[in-house]
Amino acid sequence: MSDTMPAENSEHPGRIMAGEMAEQPAVLRHIIEEGAPAIREVAAAIAAKRPRFVLLAARGTSDNAALYAKYLLEIRLGLPCGLTSMSTTTAYGARPDLTDVLFVTVSQSGGSPDLVASANAAREAGAVTLAVTNNPRSPLAAVCEFQIDILAGPERALPATKTYTASLLTLYFFGEGLREREGFAAKMLPELAARILDRRDEVRRLAARYRFAERMVITSRGYGYPTAKEAALKLMETSYVPALAYSGADLLHGPLAMVDNISPVIAIVPDGKGGEALQPVLDRLRGRGADLMVVGPAKNVEAASAGFVLPTHGVPEELQPILEILPLQLLAYEVTIARGQDPDAPRALAKVTETR
Amino acid sequence: MSDTMPAENSEHPGRIMAGEMAEQPAVLRHIIEEGAPAIREVAAAIAAKRPRFVLLAARGTSDNAALYAKYLLEIRLGLPCGLTSMSTTTAYGARPDLTDVLFVTVSQSGGSPDLVASANAAREAGAVTLAVTNNPRSPLAAVCEFQIDILAGPERALPATKTYTASLLTLYFFGEGLREREGFAAKMLPELAARILDRRDEVRRLAARYRFAERMVITSRGYGYPTAKEAALKLMETSYVPALAYSGADLLHGPLAMVDNISPVIAIVPDGKGGEALQPVLDRLRGRGADLMVVGPAKNVEAASAGFVLPTHGVPEELQPILEILPLQLLAYEVTIARGQDPDAPRALAKVTETR
Repeated sequence: MSDTMPAENSEHPGRIMAGEMAEQPAVLRHIIEEGAPAIREVAAAIAAKRPRFVLLAARGTSDNAALYAKYLLEIRLGLPCGLTSMSTTTAYGARPDLTDVLFVTVSQSGGSPDLVASANAAREAGAVTLAVTNNPRSPLAAVCEFQIDILAGPERALPATKTYTASLLTLYFFGEGLREREGFAAKMLPELAARILDRRDEVRRLAARYRFAERMVITSRGYGYPTAKEAALKLMETSYVPALAYSGADLLHGPLAMVDNISPVIAIVPDGKGGEALQPVLDRLRGRGADLMVVGPAKNVEAASAGFVLPTHGVPEELQPILEILPLQLLAYEVTIARGQDPDAPRALAKVTETR
Repeated sequence: MSDTMPAENSEHPGRIMAGEMAEQPAVLRHIIEEGAPAIREVAAAIAAKRPRFVLLAARGTSDNAALYAKYLLEIRLGLPCGLTSMSTTTAYGARPDLTDVLFVTVSQSGGSPDLVASANAAREAGAVTLAVTNNPRSPLAAVCEFQIDILAGPERALPATKTYTASLLTLYFFGEGLREREGFAAKMLPELAARILDRRDEVRRLAARYRFAERMVITSRGYGYPTAKEAALKLMETSYVPALAYSGADLLHGPLAMVDNISPVIAIVPDGKGGEALQPVLDRLRGRGADLMVVGPAKNVEAASAGFVLPTHGVPEELQPILEILPLQLLAYEVTIARGQDPDAPRALAKVTETR
């Protein structure tokens, strides 16, 4: 897919990121049409080992994809999950007994040394290890017993976009595979994603709202919470706006004090149980006079200060995160452009971050 | 202990929080002298059930105490741990098989409905359930098979301080009890805590630095990471400064772009392996010209723009979090007073947050 991308050009800030965002419908279609059978095979082999617990290890954008997998596997598979704190292994040398544990690493590059070390330690400790990466020839894929390629094609912009949605869809097919399902519902995603990405002008108008915002709060619940975290990360690493992501429940336990009429709030409202659980939080935010932008169903957008109506009709809640993040990727991009910065090249970042 | 506290008085902003912070050495001593045997008994009964995995459920400040327990149990007990996303149970009705699982809830009030519902569901799903609360007559304690009282006495200020350090020490004794140890090293904490709290003038001078800060980044690694999160929460809920907490490794995966010369950084540097793992992050921050304040050993404070030297000599790294948070509680308090606000009464917050 990289062949079709426009050439890198510093006179066109954000061109690489824009190109990669635009590729997402094609990447999703590619995973559905070409990737799903291989994912199902890996899932069947892993299901045969009957893991009882899942540990997930990842950093940055991939950590948000791992959080999505945590909701998915807990809710749909009844598998208790935990996100690992890698330093317990890499810095402190912890060697827990991981019999019956499925250890899943998610990484775009598959190259982060702490992930490789954690996966290696997990395998030695008896875990079934799986690498979900965009690079099947990576050190991470080599060290894990199983590996799945997210098939997103080379990602060159520093802010990860297509590898995020590709990871989510891959993890969805993996979860469906574990329960011996095909995941047909995903077929509607490429078309819906394309329709959302076509609404860039709408997002540009929303972005104007945040031209001078000095901070933002992003909230959701359930399946939408990983979206809140990923949207916050995207905004921070491109436009440098400090964006604080909270689950709606956690927001009420303290950080709500910080929300006032100069602290805009973005709420991702899943069309389903997560959205229902978020309603009391939205009421509290409205009660505080917060400037509230909603990404979600029309009725929630209408009750807010602004918003982006998501076409979620008929889309199972567990697939909505793959759509929810798209307008927020665009938003991060447009806010950055509006501020005269280059989304392709955030200061201080390297594509492969070598944390140990 | 509540008898000795000064009367509530709106003419003295922060008086309740100040009183409760000052109680901490006495609370720690009380746990060591009166609480430890009962904690060890509960730990022995739970150890006999041989849990293989630990799930922790909590919100707000207690969630940061739960994160501390996660590091402690993974590193010192080799027990894989996960922090639960309560909505999977309360909103989505997930019912995972929790045989062999120890389900630990941490809550000051023991009254949050979602915690009670999660603990109840976990018990029905086969988990060994433990409530760590400041209220042994709470609904949460009633619903769990085991319960431990953190013995902090009534907490009236909205920002939790003494219940945080009391939870940490209680969880430390619980962890030591699981491995049939007494945890004698904790004995030095009350005296050290008192010495730190006596240095309020020093913290007041540091607070002046943040009088006009519009955002802050707080970072650490390993055992210090829960401290970073709790310090950020304390600053947000008292002074309303948006404070972003990241593990040092995660900071390099994106949010580092946000750090510039007007974004002050506070680093908690554990005296031990966590601090060593944080060094490359501190180097990167210095390289970006960040205003860096360090809470930690003298040599790290000297290499920073400002700092608070922590008396960690001879204190095992796993106990340092109980000391690290103290100057940061004082800092949140002093920044709030300097901004003319009342730390006792953050807008929008209630002491028992009823999330469902």
